[in-house]
Amino acid sequence: MSEVQQSVPLSSEVGGRVGGELVIGDIGPVADLSSLVIFGITGDLARKKLVPAIYDLAHGGQLPAGFDLVGFARDAANSEPVLRESVIAHARRPFDPAVWQALTQRIHLVEGSFDDPGGFTQLASLLAVLDQRRGKPDNYVFYLSVPPSAFATVCGQLAVVGLNRPARGWRRVVVEKPFGHDLPSSRTLEVVLAQYFPPSSIYRIDHYLGKETVQNILALRFANGMFEPLWNNRHIDHVQITMAESVGVTGRAGYYDGVGAARDVIQNHLLQLLALIAMEEPVGFDADSIAAEKVKILSATELLGPLDETSARGQYGPGIDDDVRLPGLTEEDGFPADSSTETFAALTVGITTRRWAGVPFYIRTGKRLARRTTEIAVTFTPPAHGSPAARAAGVSNVLVFRVQPDDGIELHIGAKRPGGGMQIQPVSLGMDFRSVFDPAPEAYERLIGDVLRGDGTLFPRRAEVEHSWRIIDPLLQHWATAGRPDTYPAGTSGPASADDILSRSGRVWRTL
Amino acid sequence: MSEVQQSVPLSSEVGGRVGGELVIGDIGPVADLSSLVIFGITGDLARKKLVPAIYDLAHGGQLPAGFDLVGFARDAANSEPVLRESVIAHARRPFDPAVWQALTQRIHLVEGSFDDPGGFTQLASLLAVLDQRRGKPDNYVFYLSVPPSAFATVCGQLAVVGLNRPARGWRRVVVEKPFGHDLPSSRTLEVVLAQYFPPSSIYRIDHYLGKETVQNILALRFANGMFEPLWNNRHIDHVQITMAESVGVTGRAGYYDGVGAARDVIQNHLLQLLALIAMEEPVGFDADSIAAEKVKILSATELLGPLDETSARGQYGPGIDDDVRLPGLTEEDGFPADSSTETFAALTVGITTRRWAGVPFYIRTGKRLARRTTEIAVTFTPPAHGSPAARAAGVSNVLVFRVQPDDGIELHIGAKRPGGGMQIQPVSLGMDFRSVFDPAPEAYERLIGDVLRGDGTLFPRRAEVEHSWRIIDPLLQHWATAGRPDTYPAGTSGPASADDILSRSGRVWRTL
Repeated sequence: MSEVQQSVPLSSEVGGRVGGELVIGDIGPVADLSSLVIFGITGDLARKKLVPAIYDLAHGGQLPAGFDLVGFARDAANSEPVLRESVIAHARRPFDPAVWQALTQRIHLVEGSFDDPGGFTQLASLLAVLDQRRGKPDNYVFYLSVPPSAFATVCGQLAVVGLNRPARGWRRVVVEKPFGHDLPSSRTLEVVLAQYFPPSSIYRIDHYLGKETVQNILALRFANGMFEPLWNNRHIDHVQITMAESVGVTGRAGYYDGVGAARDVIQNHLLQLLALIAMEEPVGFDADSIAAEKVKILSATELLGPLDETSARGQYGPGIDDDVRLPGLTEEDGFPADSSTETFAALTVGITTRRWAGVPFYIRTGKRLARRTTEIAVTFTPPAHGSPAARAAGVSNVLVFRVQPDDGIELHIGAKRPGGGMQIQPVSLGMDFRSVFDPAPEAYERLIGDVLRGDGTLFPRRAEVEHSWRIIDPLLQHWATAGRPDTYPAGTSGPASADDILSRSGRVWRTL
Repeated sequence: MSEVQQSVPLSSEVGGRVGGELVIGDIGPVADLSSLVIFGITGDLARKKLVPAIYDLAHGGQLPAGFDLVGFARDAANSEPVLRESVIAHARRPFDPAVWQALTQRIHLVEGSFDDPGGFTQLASLLAVLDQRRGKPDNYVFYLSVPPSAFATVCGQLAVVGLNRPARGWRRVVVEKPFGHDLPSSRTLEVVLAQYFPPSSIYRIDHYLGKETVQNILALRFANGMFEPLWNNRHIDHVQITMAESVGVTGRAGYYDGVGAARDVIQNHLLQLLALIAMEEPVGFDADSIAAEKVKILSATELLGPLDETSARGQYGPGIDDDVRLPGLTEEDGFPADSSTETFAALTVGITTRRWAGVPFYIRTGKRLARRTTEIAVTFTPPAHGSPAARAAGVSNVLVFRVQPDDGIELHIGAKRPGGGMQIQPVSLGMDFRSVFDPAPEAYERLIGDVLRGDGTLFPRRAEVEHSWRIIDPLLQHWATAGRPDTYPAGTSGPASADDILSRSGRVWRTL
């Protein structure tokens, strides 16, 4: 890890890169010369996701020339071995010591705590030196890989040393969820950020939006002539959005307890998926056009009630998986025995537009479920009741966007069973993206690259975040006064109350 | 092969059959006790298709109790070894000597020529004896596996010995294409048949309709809610129906010369496929309801012109495939050097209904083409011109019904190429029926079983046959006065004039 004064030029031939510099690849707009500062470089997220993603960008030749990474943390000094191990363990591409060696020439570590002005003074000097050395303007990305409670402190300190205001360059601030825990607290966070940085410079990371399948939703919907005519309440019966995890929350009590599944996943990831599935066609695929449509559809989205019948929450109790006993949530380290944090949440929303009126969108997420999967399943309306085909059939047409683990698409239809008569049997047409396409960049790799290029397409706007809180806040308030979550055994499909949501209208969840 | 007087009961345990009798399986309506007479038992079709299909039915336990097969031909006697070899070579199921042994107890051979009354007298006695022995009424299927020119003779002889009129039982007459060579000759044939048998007893075999994928067209269209809303001229751009063969007409000059591709394949198979793809939903999946819709759609179908621009014909010349020289048609045995028989035909039809007005249906067939395939490809209308997706795309949505060789369905759509931007790339979702379903019966196996059960669903009615001739007759007349077909090299995609049909409207044939 170089100190500034020790920096040396990159070796003249590293990986596939040319001319001794890491150069940008053909991934769209060219990134400016810039420096990326990660606050909390030694934290969980930075180690497991951010630094490996930056390594992958370097390996792919996709970092801009003149790039520097500055890591800021209380224990930043001497963390190079830790970061190196993280890259080996978590990067998408194989570990290439030469690439890492070249990258470390551009990594600079600043040790400091967020309430100590000294560290920020040192940071300002370092960035100035790097600018001068690379001949670049003061283009800084501040990645706040810190708890939201530290946003105000960090931004305030940046302001004290004048780093929040660009001279010749620009500022971009990256923030991670949770963006608050309800609408008022989310607004408070935004007000803090807005004190120091203009709205257009804030990049709210929802790493789900960096996943290739998610980006593909718009392509599939609008580049294919056959889907759009079907995409409305005459031809769609309902939509299910599921994010199921098989893991529990082991080791994450500090973050998870008191937050729960709805805030952790539905408010951000799953309502973003809903927006992409339901929005009108944008006038262009640029950031502003897409954001406008997402805001519009979220502004028309609301919980359907009565909440006792249209929602469910659960907390995993002990369970058995492959003869292994799985602990219940309250047995996990750090969770109180009376924790009422939900690890499963399901709800129903509707969209009050001409396209969607009457179509329920069922959303569920949970931990310690039977299977890991994230998917959006669009179920089409069956043939007209009483038609000969309907009498023969009973097979739903479902278009499934599989986000993970095996991203792809599936179309479930009915086909005739061979032989006499007209017996219909469900069959599935499918495609795995990985069998067709080169490996897609990891979500963080894509998103960090986008920030460096100033492409905000995949980052939710403030209005999206606040509409999402507005949508789920009534449910959170309802739960706050409605006793404890139902218990479900670890390794199952969640509480029975979740099944009741759909069975009231004769529907069923897709099997986990 | 038993003489009548030598008949012995079946052994008590053969294959999976019970009680010493071949019993019907669970393939729908139970077949009556009956006898099946094949005229032309030693002919090509009977040896390669009919007798192996009957063996497969026997192997599957799907022949009715009390079933007898009577073979009639000039050289029928002592043909058992020939039939046995045919079954070994052509049956779908493995050859089981015990099944064959049991079946031969029910096979009876009558030697006679069609213009010799003696053979028919012998046939009548044999059938009467069999009825008495099995205690069955006079239920006879007459399978005319003979040239159409022999229809009148055979039917007349049957009338002479009184076999055309049932006493207590029924008659079913099975006829094979060609059903004439134009509308007038087709009508003449029908008049001949109608002299001796009522219309409801005529089963016209179009073996393509026995293929599982063909039967599946109706199931896919009507049992799936998502296709019907798209199935019209607002959402379908055009339809391509292709039957391409890689083989030539070696050894078939006697049948093929002067007939050609349009009469051989389009008038029957491909216009039947068109009817199934385009027809309205029947009120039920019974034979009458389906026939009514097929007749209706064919009655609204007509050639689009001008024929010089909307049709093409070709004759294969010499070509090269894998370094092997392929002969041209006029080099094949039995074809005159100046044969003008077309081995490739392509045409355009339209359907004057509210659903289909303006949608061209392109139909092509040929021999010695680059690949063997039969498929129906429905191309959907692309996204509205000028929309952002349309600008990004240029990918057609195509739903393909693959009839052979690998029957299944494919859906071609556009997906986003991974990484930045919105680049759309064609991808394909597919399903092979054989990977999902048990092997379907062969077409003849299915169709003979249907005849035995009296299920006429898969047999075109007279009105369908005659509409098909009405549709293509103007083209045949046009060609009769328009010189020779274009020549195309064997092993290619046919003549360039076929490409011109589509390119005039900016479309292209699917690649062979």
